[in-house]
Amino acid sequence: MANLELIKTIARASPTKIVLVVLDGLGGLPNPETGKTELETASTPNLDQLATKGICGLIDLVSPGITPGSGPGHLALFGYDPVTFAIGRGALEAVGIDFDLEPGDVAARGNFCTIDEASLVTDRRAGRISTEKCTELCRLLDGLVIERVKLFVRPVREHRFVVVFRGDNIFPDVSDSDPQQIGVAPKIVTALKPQADRIASIANQFITRAKVILADHYPANMVLLRGFSQRPQLPTMGEVYKLKPAVIASYPMYRGLAKLVGMEALETGTSIEDELTTLKRNYANYDFFFLHIKATDSAGEDGNFNGKVAVIEQVDSALTHLLSIAPDVIVVTGDHSTPALLKGHSWHPVPIILYSKWCRLDRVSEFSESACVLGGLGRFPATQVMPLAMANALKLTKFGA
Amino acid sequence: MANLELIKTIARASPTKIVLVVLDGLGGLPNPETGKTELETASTPNLDQLATKGICGLIDLVSPGITPGSGPGHLALFGYDPVTFAIGRGALEAVGIDFDLEPGDVAARGNFCTIDEASLVTDRRAGRISTEKCTELCRLLDGLVIERVKLFVRPVREHRFVVVFRGDNIFPDVSDSDPQQIGVAPKIVTALKPQADRIASIANQFITRAKVILADHYPANMVLLRGFSQRPQLPTMGEVYKLKPAVIASYPMYRGLAKLVGMEALETGTSIEDELTTLKRNYANYDFFFLHIKATDSAGEDGNFNGKVAVIEQVDSALTHLLSIAPDVIVVTGDHSTPALLKGHSWHPVPIILYSKWCRLDRVSEFSESACVLGGLGRFPATQVMPLAMANALKLTKFGA
Repeated sequence: MANLELIKTIARASPTKIVLVVLDGLGGLPNPETGKTELETASTPNLDQLATKGICGLIDLVSPGITPGSGPGHLALFGYDPVTFAIGRGALEAVGIDFDLEPGDVAARGNFCTIDEASLVTDRRAGRISTEKCTELCRLLDGLVIERVKLFVRPVREHRFVVVFRGDNIFPDVSDSDPQQIGVAPKIVTALKPQADRIASIANQFITRAKVILADHYPANMVLLRGFSQRPQLPTMGEVYKLKPAVIASYPMYRGLAKLVGMEALETGTSIEDELTTLKRNYANYDFFFLHIKATDSAGEDGNFNGKVAVIEQVDSALTHLLSIAPDVIVVTGDHSTPALLKGHSWHPVPIILYSKWCRLDRVSEFSESACVLGGLGRFPATQVMPLAMANALKLTKFGA
Repeated sequence: MANLELIKTIARASPTKIVLVVLDGLGGLPNPETGKTELETASTPNLDQLATKGICGLIDLVSPGITPGSGPGHLALFGYDPVTFAIGRGALEAVGIDFDLEPGDVAARGNFCTIDEASLVTDRRAGRISTEKCTELCRLLDGLVIERVKLFVRPVREHRFVVVFRGDNIFPDVSDSDPQQIGVAPKIVTALKPQADRIASIANQFITRAKVILADHYPANMVLLRGFSQRPQLPTMGEVYKLKPAVIASYPMYRGLAKLVGMEALETGTSIEDELTTLKRNYANYDFFFLHIKATDSAGEDGNFNGKVAVIEQVDSALTHLLSIAPDVIVVTGDHSTPALLKGHSWHPVPIILYSKWCRLDRVSEFSESACVLGGLGRFPATQVMPLAMANALKLTKFGA
């Protein structure tokens, strides 16, 4: 927090513009046959030129060895310490579907599950029902009002949903109903602090009603709730950086995360070209753009090495559109590594290019994990990316006289 | 501490194995005639191959410029912030002789000293009596019981000893009796908090009795006590990392330090080969091994450049035994630098190799200070070594969703 407090005292508004391009899960591991990572395999003339004209390095999103989820990874890129500003499970699910969580709302992650005649859980995921089925069931539960608290029940994916409680005087300090095992009954939600008696009672009433409503919907004949939490109290990027920031992302999760720190979500198509068109169209109205590209991560999660290579090459081609606008500062990086070999997020540090007129060139002339090891930025915590971008945009005044 | 708390939430037990090889005082400074450090002078084909197949870097045990003692150096390698988890002088001496300090015990560092007829200190080290003499005198003082508190008096080396107070209701908050100068009388031990009145009284009674017992043992005719302290409250590696860890070290200090964080001390011979045989024999029963090699530091402390080179070459030869077991993760590093040129510990960062199937290769092909500067791990705090080793052993789950 100290760092944001410091930045707040020296940030100043100015006409310069910063574009942060995040290739989700950018970092990789070498293909054992070629010794080259996805990024090193891809033909990336534009990124290589940007690396040549800019300064490079490697970032740790949380700290060395820690594999970040999407929430912590992005908060770090926006300059917020992801350990200090942890987002509760329920709040993250709400954010993940771009639900506008208001201060005071309490959100819980829900599972549709299966119970037997004795009300014991036999499947915590109700056989992973389809998202369509989930959507249909959520409609049955949505919109209840219990003790003047309004409940929003919204589908996420498969058996997953979010329930948001909105009303006066409710607090998230309650235990889960999800027993995290089968063969036992769902737990009663209990208050962990006296102030949470009311929400515990309301949650239990909701669960009782859901059981009645779902009785004929085997295997999804019950709900389990966990991770009751509120929207984290984050100072906005306007307050901290004096920026007017916008997010361009086709996936709801990333719009949701960006809105938590005060970014405005711009309507956009889903392709990389669409996103860049959106950027061009709105370029005059904001001074910070967070442009999110999901497909790198998806290919990595699927273990699709060549697919990830292809997405990186698409981004590289599309980059000409960005370069033609000539933003004052361009940052290209990722929110974590997703090596196709590991089929998931990993702890490996992520390569970064920072380009500006004032970046102090290094000798890196290719955008790759191995070249960035020798970059002028070295290896550093991702929470320092924003201060560096701000400095390169000449938006930070001197600290101390 | 935040970091250990975070690790605790994401660590999981798994069958993979980690071996941490610590060459005490590994880092060095170049011989002015050759421009090469001890490590750079040594012929190390096995370490070089491990560096080639692994990822390298440089670690700071405490922080840049800080010369670590053995306590802080090792705590950092085990992942415990050495500034947060400071070990008091008395407790460190007790740990250093592998004395099993129990929670509640109070330990003080003792010096045999010389006093004159006026009871003024004339030599704070009693002419550096031999360790044999020290052992003999400690036997005279050992085993006293004062106000139901039992006293253990154990030799360390030359004039140094440890006294441990064991009993109910004793606290370490007392001043030293050691005046840290000659020509004055030893000080009266005084309580710094009311709760410590009892231990202050007991310590003063011990000193009075020691003076009587030692009266005829000039020059060792008095004792000075300092650094009253308790065993630090460290969460165990089992609690933090869910590991079952073992230490293989021939020197008591390092077994003692490792036991403070919950490692089991394995019986071992003193040579490097002995230690590796111990490792092989116990390999099935633990998932983390800390293997300590002392001779690098001893040669460095003696200013014996070539001796240190020779030890490094011995370790390199013995490494084939380790490689043949093929642990999932191998870390080779040191707990501080001990350049022969400085004849003592130094602040220089220490080279490190981390080898695993998932380490993301860099271009380093030789294990040396200058090659590690360009390594893929960069320069980083030693407290991050354990998270990295854990990640590479696939023993850490994702942080945040």
